[in-house]
Amino acid sequence: MVSTLVRAALSQPVEYTPVWFMRQAGRSLPEYREIRQGNAMLEACRTPDLVTEITLQPVRRHGVDAAIFFSDIVVPLQAAGVDVVIEPGVGPVIAHPVRTRADLERIPDLDPEAIADIAESVTRLVASLGGTPLIGFAGAPFTLASYLIEGGPSKNHERTKAMMLGDPELFRDILAKLAGISTTFLEVQLSAGASAFQLFDSWAGYLAPRDYRTHVLPHSTGIFSALSSCDVPSFHFGVQTGELLSSMAEAGSDVVGVDYRVELPDASRRVRPGQALQGNLDPAMLFAPWEVLRPRIETIVREGLDHGGHVFNLGHGVLPATDPAVPGLVVEEVHRVSRLVLAERAAASTGATAGAEEA
Amino acid sequence: MVSTLVRAALSQPVEYTPVWFMRQAGRSLPEYREIRQGNAMLEACRTPDLVTEITLQPVRRHGVDAAIFFSDIVVPLQAAGVDVVIEPGVGPVIAHPVRTRADLERIPDLDPEAIADIAESVTRLVASLGGTPLIGFAGAPFTLASYLIEGGPSKNHERTKAMMLGDPELFRDILAKLAGISTTFLEVQLSAGASAFQLFDSWAGYLAPRDYRTHVLPHSTGIFSALSSCDVPSFHFGVQTGELLSSMAEAGSDVVGVDYRVELPDASRRVRPGQALQGNLDPAMLFAPWEVLRPRIETIVREGLDHGGHVFNLGHGVLPATDPAVPGLVVEEVHRVSRLVLAERAAASTGATAGAEEA
Repeated sequence: MVSTLVRAALSQPVEYTPVWFMRQAGRSLPEYREIRQGNAMLEACRTPDLVTEITLQPVRRHGVDAAIFFSDIVVPLQAAGVDVVIEPGVGPVIAHPVRTRADLERIPDLDPEAIADIAESVTRLVASLGGTPLIGFAGAPFTLASYLIEGGPSKNHERTKAMMLGDPELFRDILAKLAGISTTFLEVQLSAGASAFQLFDSWAGYLAPRDYRTHVLPHSTGIFSALSSCDVPSFHFGVQTGELLSSMAEAGSDVVGVDYRVELPDASRRVRPGQALQGNLDPAMLFAPWEVLRPRIETIVREGLDHGGHVFNLGHGVLPATDPAVPGLVVEEVHRVSRLVLAERAAASTGATAGAEEA
Repeated sequence: MVSTLVRAALSQPVEYTPVWFMRQAGRSLPEYREIRQGNAMLEACRTPDLVTEITLQPVRRHGVDAAIFFSDIVVPLQAAGVDVVIEPGVGPVIAHPVRTRADLERIPDLDPEAIADIAESVTRLVASLGGTPLIGFAGAPFTLASYLIEGGPSKNHERTKAMMLGDPELFRDILAKLAGISTTFLEVQLSAGASAFQLFDSWAGYLAPRDYRTHVLPHSTGIFSALSSCDVPSFHFGVQTGELLSSMAEAGSDVVGVDYRVELPDASRRVRPGQALQGNLDPAMLFAPWEVLRPRIETIVREGLDHGGHVFNLGHGVLPATDPAVPGLVVEEVHRVSRLVLAERAAASTGATAGAEEA
């Protein structure tokens, strides 16, 4: 039986709207904060006991329709041999930023054997999850490139953009290298049994549309194209990407994730026919009273069903201070209201057919 | 003689495209860093000698077509009596965050006499600037509210949004109070001779469009409406506001500022007929080689002239690490290329008329 998530992602009929949450595993859960005590982030991501437990925590607690593989965007870089640490409160810090061709040439490819632990974590998860699908995880080339070129997180990405425009050949070759690393990282997850994958382009929303199209889109397209033979649904997401949605849609994923800033009917006009949407409740809404939150959920469910294929999600990750009781209520409400709407529409359509037959 | 900036803002004919840069005064200039040594930010903003010198520095150095009044978004709050400090590397920190009606009732209105120093700074600037117009500065109610409610800068604005939805009456009354404070702050600048003003809504781009329209737009509209009798051009800007542009345009400013993420032809379709555009070169482009930067400038100049009224600017503030020699080159190029394009178009139009007469 193909899962509801996979059917929704492929714009096939579903009985209810499936739902998961970006960053559902992690900082908002007390059981996560407990298990991470004494474990550094990158070590945790490479330890199958921890990865499986952390990935499963939100599935148990919230009853979501998918697990998302717990990892960090720089894990494949570290596994390839890049000297990177995650400093708490800062983010990834790259020991030797990549700013010249010689720097690029020092980055090895990612050997699948270097991430046998990732395959092991995925295998264990697939066994534990039963019918619940596991979504594989990787960062997109531009986002990885920004970390490498800036040397860490950046608000303005000025070195990255200056290289993109000032030395486009070097920039292109860095992104091609990173696209290869991300592809391998995802292939390992898919070979081990992941049912779908999402490419996260966290920083793409800092690009002007023409720069995204010229310098970034071809590399993200390459990943979706390389993985199309795996025959699993693919998701593509970045925040602040309203102006980029039609370009991101062209990259060829089955599902386009929508930032909370863009209303779904607008997003619907920007993607390709037959492409599903994911999103897009503002994560800050989980702090609002239920009587305010409930109708917001219904609006998004209805807009998603109006579009066609729809996976309910937030329009950005779960915020750390979120009450861990709330996401589960959202899951129940998405299921309840989507079943109702689908039943209403089926009845209306049967009535219309009956009416048409009578006429 | 009405300045080129004012004419462009009012969509009247100009001989060239005027240009200024958001954050042109400040961190990117060595002469600014020197003068600020030993002067705390809020003290500097209240000292006419410093405000006038800092406001004039970029006019001297870059030859821009307007000065922007040097201030900080929280200056009118502090002047009204809110206990706020600016912590270097953090931003404004509010001693008593505003979370209840009692907290709101403790915020006084802004007495124009409490900001006699602001009037003094503006008067001196207008005298020094000669024909160069001075743009007045204020923060929009939502942005000020977020600082007050969160207690400082916030990445996610979750308390602010939770109040907006959970206690909309309190939220409305806070924004109405802040709109009054911003209006007074601007009235004082305009009475002292400022030739225009810009309302900065730094955080509006973190709102979903329906929330912006319902809970924020009416208060920003109120400011433009209250100041319409001053008969100076008004500018309205926020980053990440692509999806909000048509709503922000409805607030009624003469000019809508455009984030670098939105291409001007797209922005052109989102504003009201006759409304001018401002923007929108990506500030990171100032780090690119001149042979890349130059055609970008030309594209934006041409797109702006295609739209009608256009004030050239960045699509966000000047970045701190910007080479201080570059903005002046941009000014020269905007002037040069816009004169050429206008001459081309005038010739084509004369040719067309001549052609039409011959036919």
